[in-house]
Amino acid sequence: MTLTANTVLSPADFLTHWQGHRALTRRVIEAFPEEQLFTFTPAPPMRPFGEMAVELYFVGEMTLTGLSTGQWPEPDWASGPRDKATLLGAWDTLTQRLEAELPGVQAEVFSRVHHLPWGAMPGWVAAIYAVDNEIHHRGQGYVYLRALGIEPPTFYER
Amino acid sequence: MTLTANTVLSPADFLTHWQGHRALTRRVIEAFPEEQLFTFTPAPPMRPFGEMAVELYFVGEMTLTGLSTGQWPEPDWASGPRDKATLLGAWDTLTQRLEAELPGVQAEVFSRVHHLPWGAMPGWVAAIYAVDNEIHHRGQGYVYLRALGIEPPTFYER
Repeated sequence: MTLTANTVLSPADFLTHWQGHRALTRRVIEAFPEEQLFTFTPAPPMRPFGEMAVELYFVGEMTLTGLSTGQWPEPDWASGPRDKATLLGAWDTLTQRLEAELPGVQAEVFSRVHHLPWGAMPGWVAAIYAVDNEIHHRGQGYVYLRALGIEPPTFYER
Repeated sequence: MTLTANTVLSPADFLTHWQGHRALTRRVIEAFPEEQLFTFTPAPPMRPFGEMAVELYFVGEMTLTGLSTGQWPEPDWASGPRDKATLLGAWDTLTQRLEAELPGVQAEVFSRVHHLPWGAMPGWVAAIYAVDNEIHHRGQGYVYLRALGIEPPTFYER
C-alpha cells in the first residue's frame, strides 16, 4: 500500500521555503546603503526598511521558538539591531538555528492551536504568516531601493 | 492507529491561504483611484500597480489551469483588463473558479513535477510561488498607496 500524504507543503518543504525567502531578504538588506537602511522612507509614515527587517528577524525567532516549545513570548521590539552589520549577524545566527532546530519540530505542531501575542491560531497559520509578512515588507523594500536608484535582487532567485 | 499527515499546509489549507490573500489584494486594487491604477508609479521604472495586478490575475489563472490539467500555457499578458471594473470582474470570476475547481486537484499533483513557461518545478513550488508573487507585488502596492496619501487595507486581515 502506498500512502500519499495529503499535503501541499511538508515540514521539510517549509524549511526550504522559509530559508529561500530569508536568503533573498538578506540580499535586500545588503543592497541598502548603510546610511539609508535605518533612515530612508519614500512614503511617510512608512518605516525605514531596517526597522521592518528587525521586525522580520524578531518574528522569525519568535516563530521558531513558538513551534519548538509552544511558548510565544512577545519580542522586545526596541532591543533589535540598529546597524547593518549587527542585523546581518543576527540574521545569519537565526538562519543556522532554523537549519538545526526546525527539523526537530513534529508535523502535528503545525495543526495544533498556538497562542501568539496577537491571537490564537493553528501552527501552520503562524508559520506561514511569518513568511508572508517577510515577503510583504521585503516587497516594500524593493520600492524603497528603486526610489534610491538601486536595482533590487531578482525576486525569483532564492 | 492514528496517522498524522506529514504536512504544514494541506490542499484545503492552501485554498484558504490563497483566497485570503486574493481577498486582500482585491481590497488593495479597490483602494487605488481609477485614474492612478494603471498610470502611477512612485519609483520608475517600476510598473503601475494595475499592471502588476493583471500579472497576478494571469498567474493565478495559469496556476489553477496547470494544477487542474498539467498544462501551463503562457498567458497572453497584453490581453489583460485595462480598467478597474474589468480587472475586479475578472478577479471575482477567478475567485469563484478557485473555490469550485481547486478542491478537485489531487494532493499528489503538488509533489509531481510541472513544466511552467519559466522552468520545471514541483507543483507545490509553482502553487506557493503564485501566492508569494502576489504578496510581493501587493506589498509594493502598499507603498504606492502611501505615496498617494492613501491608507492601505490592514495586512493581517484576510
